[in-house]
Formats: sequence, structure tokens, C-alpha cells
Amino acid sequence: MHGSHRTLRIRRGFCISALLGIDIGGSKIALAVADASGRVLAHARRPTQPSGDAREDLARIVRDARELLASAGAAEGELAGVGVSAPGPVDPASGSILKPPNLPGWDVVPIREILAQAFGAPICVENDANAAALAEGRWGAGRGYADFAYLTMSTGVGAGLILGGRLYAGRRGNAGEVGHLPVEWEGEPCACGLRGCLEAYVGGAAWTRRLRRIAPEPGRVAALAGGRERVTPRELVAAAREGDAFAVGELARWNEYLARGIVALVFVLAPEAVVLGTIATAAGEALCFAPLRERVRAHVWPLLGRDLAILPSGLGEALPDRAGIALALQAVERGAEAGARSV
Amino acid sequence: MHGSHRTLRIRRGFCISALLGIDIGGSKIALAVADASGRVLAHARRPTQPSGDAREDLARIVRDARELLASAGAAEGELAGVGVSAPGPVDPASGSILKPPNLPGWDVVPIREILAQAFGAPICVENDANAAALAEGRWGAGRGYADFAYLTMSTGVGAGLILGGRLYAGRRGNAGEVGHLPVEWEGEPCACGLRGCLEAYVGGAAWTRRLRRIAPEPGRVAALAGGRERVTPRELVAAAREGDAFAVGELARWNEYLARGIVALVFVLAPEAVVLGTIATAAGEALCFAPLRERVRAHVWPLLGRDLAILPSGLGEALPDRAGIALALQAVERGAEAGARSV
Repeated sequence: MHGSHRTLRIRRGFCISALLGIDIGGSKIALAVADASGRVLAHARRPTQPSGDAREDLARIVRDARELLASAGAAEGELAGVGVSAPGPVDPASGSILKPPNLPGWDVVPIREILAQAFGAPICVENDANAAALAEGRWGAGRGYADFAYLTMSTGVGAGLILGGRLYAGRRGNAGEVGHLPVEWEGEPCACGLRGCLEAYVGGAAWTRRLRRIAPEPGRVAALAGGRERVTPRELVAAAREGDAFAVGELARWNEYLARGIVALVFVLAPEAVVLGTIATAAGEALCFAPLRERVRAHVWPLLGRDLAILPSGLGEALPDRAGIALALQAVERGAEAGARSV
Repeated sequence: MHGSHRTLRIRRGFCISALLGIDIGGSKIALAVADASGRVLAHARRPTQPSGDAREDLARIVRDARELLASAGAAEGELAGVGVSAPGPVDPASGSILKPPNLPGWDVVPIREILAQAFGAPICVENDANAAALAEGRWGAGRGYADFAYLTMSTGVGAGLILGGRLYAGRRGNAGEVGHLPVEWEGEPCACGLRGCLEAYVGGAAWTRRLRRIAPEPGRVAALAGGRERVTPRELVAAAREGDAFAVGELARWNEYLARGIVALVFVLAPEAVVLGTIATAAGEALCFAPLRERVRAHVWPLLGRDLAILPSGLGEALPDRAGIALALQAVERGAEAGARSV
């Protein structure tokens, strides 16, 4: 169990053994156990199924995690760090999750405190966009960039910012709320209460509502979905691939609004790269990335746009596992830094 | 000359004596000599008067600086760091100034290399917005904030970003070009070639052109300026103070567009504070800051807007001296950090 193949040395001479990653999604929970280098030794996924009582849900996560650790051959005493990626607002200072919309009963849950009691290891809690940015920076499309933004492009839109090689979280962890950058003044109402937000134009939930309202019926998009009321961005992308005019036009509009959001990021941050997940990655090079690069370059200076990399996520399906493990590594490193400071 | 009152100890146990700050403005050059704590011992200002030959201009700056050092009782051998604040794009990696619009003959000037030969001390070159942000963070309105933006509000508009307590410069030093955040899609043409940029609405040059076009004549603003063709934001602010309807309306429009730019900053960075210079500081609390806070809060979430500080520059007239000295301190600290890393 304490074999030397499992005990690796990471920077600052800190010795660790196993890492535990927990990704709490609105629909699925992903658990992963990794060695010190982040190599995943075992992982498991199950539906989130919130019970309405956060402490009960967390107790179940802890039981599942213990099982997974055992199956990976890692004793709990070997646990060097735990990472928790959670939806919606997270207060990184207290390690609490604040009322994620898809988790009933999870109103201000002190998740770090609860898991610290269970595991006795350093714990890092971050929102999913920040966790994904760390994972993409370590193993995915953000590798080698000191300054980049990772954009989640699913139900909502948010960014994790890696600046100077580190996660930048802003005041109370609220940086990167780029889904609410205005892309149309006094535009479409957003679920957040403001108008004209990027998310109200390119977020999966808002876009799906729009498509169900305006997709022609009869029409290719509605036919692929089995009825207009069942349309999602998935069928829109499939129809655009076939050259359907409505779908191609809708994707061009989507790209234009997404470009407007990226333009604001570029003028504020001058990043080396912008990495896009989910919907953008699914749409791919011809339908998303090539036209998007062209739209962004039309709205920024050559100096800023020329060498700006606009890339799909490099981790794809592995992202939930990697997101949790990236945070577990961060928990270990922060512990080592705090130790070095106190010397 | 080597009296102990002059040799102070700064962090990391690095011993320094005098600091030299050089602020190269479009119209004035400010030179300052300070002790290790940043206390200004002597300073001088003169018109920039570019000769058309950058090396000749720099040789004159070096002569003036040597005179000032002597007048402050600092020998050149005591010089611990030099800071240079320059207009327009600066490549912080090479320490070169790149074609500032107001300095004819200054096309890609390797200013760090030239001054290093003259002074034999560590040199830090940054654009004026970054230098001002560092100075405001150390001695002005940004003191105590880990994450804040300083906005220059003069001929053009730009930001210096202090994130996690350090200057964030982005790719090739281009972060903070917030003057070109879009505030109106397909809006007013900007001097940069794009349309709808913040600077095209609130920058001093663009606003002055607009006022000279639309200020009523006869009217209070034109009267204060001695003719519509001589109007500047200064007379607009003065007339608004008197309650002139045209001036009050123009300032409200200016505040609304400025708020739009700040909104983008807030959703990307979630800063603790935004500090505004020049025009905003001149307009003051009632005409600028109070309405601006209200406009920003109307466009962002309470979570982000509630405790966001929107403040005037704290340094005012002292800013050019402080900007150069802040960079000189940064040059000293970077030298100490590089030394610590190489140990």
C-alpha cells in the first residue's frame, strides 16, 4: 500500500501519495483518484440526484469516494489533497458553495469544512469554470500559456482565468463572469435579471429556448429533433453541417455574439489564448472556430488578434475527472506554499 | 553622501539608496529622485520638446537626471533603480517604447538598454497607465486593494491592472486597452480604426472634437471657452457645475458610456476598486463619481457592484513623480526577486 511507485515527489520537495477529485455537476457527480502526477488511477460517475439535504448528499459523496480510494488501492491516510469543482458561486476563502441553481437544498454549504472532517487532507473548492481552466492549463489546450481564459459554453457561460500561470479569482472569487458581459445594449432579457448579456445570446439554455421558438417547422432542425419543441443546439449543429440555411444563419449569429464577448476579454486581458468548451467544441473547427477567429479579428487590433489562439477544450470527456484532480493538486501546492512562507 | 539617513532597508533585506523616476509625457517630462521609501527628495519638470531624434532626446534626459541627482545629494553610484513611464505601447520584455503618437522620431526606442548604459542600475519601463496604477496602489487611491484597475482619462483611455497585488501586463504588455472596449456596436469611429470604442465616447480628444461640433453658440460652454472652437472638457465641467442644461446632459452621456466600460471590467475581473484619473477627477464627486456609481450598479449584479469602490486618483499633481518612482521601486524589487530565485 505504501509502495514507492505510489509515493512521488512534486515541486518544493513535498511528498504526497493519492489525490481525490470531486466534480459536482448539475446532472452528474464525477469522482477520480489520481497519483501525485495527476495520473488517474480510478474514477466513477453517477447521477447527482440531490436529496434536498446537502449534508446527506455530501455524506453519500464521502462514502462513494472512500470506496473508490479503496478500489484504487489508496489508504485514506495516503490522501494528500482533495479538489472539489462545484457549479455556481463558490466562496474560495471559506470553501462554501452558495446556492447553485441545480442543487436544491444546497444553500451556503460549508463543503470544505465538512470534507476536511471526513478526509483530514487539504481541500480546494472552486467553481467549475475555474476548475476547468486549471485542468486545461495543466493537461489540455491551455498548456504552455501563462495567460489564458477557459470559457464554459454549456447551460450558462462563465470563464476561468489563468493569469501569470495562476488562477485569478477576483474579489470573493467572482472574476470571470463573462456570461454577463453586455453584447447588446438593452438587448434580450437574461436569466440573471440584466439585459443583453452574452449568456442570453450564446448560453445553451437561452439558445435552446430561442431555437424552440423560431426553428422552422417543417424544417431540417425540427425534423432531426423529432419536433420543434425538442430542438437543442445539438440538432442545430447537425443541420448546419448538412448545409441547412436556417441552421447556418443561426450559428453565424451565435459566433458573432460569442466574438463580442471574447473581444471584451481581449481588450481587458490581452491573453495568449481563449479555450472554449462544450457547445463550441461540439460545433468544431469549420462551424465554430474558423468563423469565430475571423469575427474576433474583425473587432480587435491586429496587435492583439494576430497570434491570439482560439482553441477547443483539449480534455473533452476527461474534463470532470481532471477538473477535480487539478484542484486537489492546487490544494497540495497551496499547503506547501503556506508551509514555505511560515518557515 | 553615504549618510545612514539616506540608506534605508526595504523588503527582502536589499539595501538601496536613491531612486530615479522619469515620466515622459506627450507635453511634459517629469524627473524625480526619491529615497528608498519613495519619499521624493527632488523633482523637476520641463516641456518634452522632442527634437525628432530619440537618442538625442534621451541624452538630454540623462543630463537633466544627473543634475537632479546631484542637487538631491545622491551620487550616481548610489542609484538603486530607475523607472521610466512612457506614453503608448511599451514592450516590457525588451524595455522598448514603440512609436508613441506624440513623440516624433521615437520609433521603437530601446530605452532600457540606453539608460542602463548611462546609469548602470536596474531599469523598469512601462506604459503610463501601468505606472500610474502601481503608484496609486502604493501611495494613492488603490492602497490596500489587491485587485484594482486604474483608468487614465485624458487624451486617450487606458487601464493599468493590479491583480493579486501585482501589475498584470498580459501578452507583450498589452493588457488594459480598455479604451477600445466596445460600448456601442457599429458606433462612432475611433482613432484606432475600430468603431464604438469607449475612447471614442469618453476620451479627451474625441470628446473635445464632439463638443466643438455640438456645443450651442451662443451658450454657456462656448462662452466660458471664448468660442465654440476652443471648447474643452474643462469648460463643459465648469458649465455643468453652474447647472447649464447642455453641459449637464453631455456629462450624463459621458458617465453612461464610461459606466459601460467599467461594467466590462467588473464582469471580467471582479475588482475591489476602479480608480479614475484626469477628467473624472476634475469633474469630481457630484458630476462624475456619484452618477457613475449609480450607472455601473444599474448594469452589474448587486454581488459585484455593492462594495465596488469607484474612486478618484489619490495622487493628483504628484502622479508623474510617483509613477516614475513606483517603477524604480519595481526595478529594485524585480532585481531582488531574480537574485532570490538564482540562489
